[in-house]
Amino acid sequence: MTDPVLIAMPGDEQRAERLAAELGVERIALEHRRFPDGECYLRIDAELDDLDVVLVASLDRPDPKLVPLLFAADLARDLGAGRVGLVAPYLAYMRQDRRFLPGEALTSVSFARRLSDAFDWLVTVDPHLHRYPTLDAVYSIPSEVVAAAPALADWIAGAIDRPLVIGPDEESEQWVRAVAEARGLAWRIMTKQRFGDHDVRITAPDLDGLVGHRPVLVDDILSSGATLADAARVLVAAGLPTPACAIVHGLFGDRARRTLAEAGIETLVCTDTVDAPESRIQLAAHIAPAVRRLLSSRP
Amino acid sequence: MTDPVLIAMPGDEQRAERLAAELGVERIALEHRRFPDGECYLRIDAELDDLDVVLVASLDRPDPKLVPLLFAADLARDLGAGRVGLVAPYLAYMRQDRRFLPGEALTSVSFARRLSDAFDWLVTVDPHLHRYPTLDAVYSIPSEVVAAAPALADWIAGAIDRPLVIGPDEESEQWVRAVAEARGLAWRIMTKQRFGDHDVRITAPDLDGLVGHRPVLVDDILSSGATLADAARVLVAAGLPTPACAIVHGLFGDRARRTLAEAGIETLVCTDTVDAPESRIQLAAHIAPAVRRLLSSRP
Repeated sequence: MTDPVLIAMPGDEQRAERLAAELGVERIALEHRRFPDGECYLRIDAELDDLDVVLVASLDRPDPKLVPLLFAADLARDLGAGRVGLVAPYLAYMRQDRRFLPGEALTSVSFARRLSDAFDWLVTVDPHLHRYPTLDAVYSIPSEVVAAAPALADWIAGAIDRPLVIGPDEESEQWVRAVAEARGLAWRIMTKQRFGDHDVRITAPDLDGLVGHRPVLVDDILSSGATLADAARVLVAAGLPTPACAIVHGLFGDRARRTLAEAGIETLVCTDTVDAPESRIQLAAHIAPAVRRLLSSRP
Repeated sequence: MTDPVLIAMPGDEQRAERLAAELGVERIALEHRRFPDGECYLRIDAELDDLDVVLVASLDRPDPKLVPLLFAADLARDLGAGRVGLVAPYLAYMRQDRRFLPGEALTSVSFARRLSDAFDWLVTVDPHLHRYPTLDAVYSIPSEVVAAAPALADWIAGAIDRPLVIGPDEESEQWVRAVAEARGLAWRIMTKQRFGDHDVRITAPDLDGLVGHRPVLVDDILSSGATLADAARVLVAAGLPTPACAIVHGLFGDRARRTLAEAGIETLVCTDTVDAPESRIQLAAHIAPAVRRLLSSRP
């Protein structure tokens, strides 16, 4: 087998460089620009004859990214590539996984169909698998899911004295449990009850025997910041210090930083699946083994 | 056959309303919004059992529009629609139709493949068919091409006294000739010679016997505005009045209006394939017959 090559989509160059170094493979440049009419131009100035190609594209704010991504996959194949895989550290459109109201678009299925058509395999970090048991429920290509929990647990154990890992709602339990168990940390889950669109009540966890611990909120996605902010307020009202936050995917919607600051949250770290100043936990060493497994598993 | 229904993508509501009125069919609402993380939400609150669905989506600035468009097509099918057609008054990605440099993405082919996968038929207005003979060279679904020439010719004949229709370069000849012939107007084509990236010389057309005519530049696409501005300067230098402009697709890149103003261009009109204050020529009456033909041609 010849060595695979890595290609970064625009904005993913640093992530791809770290992953290429971890894998010990070459990174090939993707030339890209936009015409004045908003269309994109892509060029790969290289022979790809029978090479396995690994495209790296984190899919936060996904809509403008999908077109160049599909074009790049087609282009790699046009230039003779063997298999074309996708490393999407953040995988979009996992949340609309059933119709809550009649007539809603199942965007998770539609998005997965396009990626499954364009790529031979997929690696991602902690997709928001809530009602789907695994990625195979929506993606028809082989995939590997990388867990960020060990990296988050390492950060918490190194940075926080006597941490108490807390999930802000029931949905977060799978990430919280994995983080806590990776380092044998104490953990609790808060309960969130919804009484209407704007009436949500969060209950502090049972804190018996945990006096003196520093709370660390853990969740998979930070989007509006509202869940973390609400949880932080409830914890402080229950007599705990302001929590730190350790998040897998820091999407940071428009007002998220203000929302977090207003709740007093000062210490917050995310993994580097999404570009943000807070994304300081690098996952290349965790992603590389999954990529190696898919590269070596010939169908 | 039950009546078809029309659905507008976000931003295409007015165009779709005019087309629905012209066709005498119902327009169904597409509920849409964006989540704080940039993902889109779509909902069609209607039964579509076996109805033919016509999605209206003009595809200028195409990249952010493709994802919701593909989702909407999938959703219509999920909700039971029969055939799902696309009316894209402006069709993107027609210009990268061959590799000018090795390794360039053939974006026209990749884009066409995704639309052909998602839709059963396609109607567009004057696609930029330059090296492709017809849409069938890239689109695998039945399509109809609507000519804007009659509408542009009507506008010129009504607004401009003694018009001389002028194409700013050889590529424009197909549109210019069609506009001129629709109303029996005089026409000329300017020649553009390229001596390097920034050395382009445009030559005024032969104006024998055309003294006293008002020049009207005609082209299919206005993007940066540079071609029209350069042509206007050459015409003025040749002793003609400042030309008016009649354009099919007014894309208006960032600095286009300034570029046009600096060349003295004051009278400029486009068709309504793209939203712009200048897009005053409505094409619904020209598009409707093409839609009717595709709706009635059962495969």
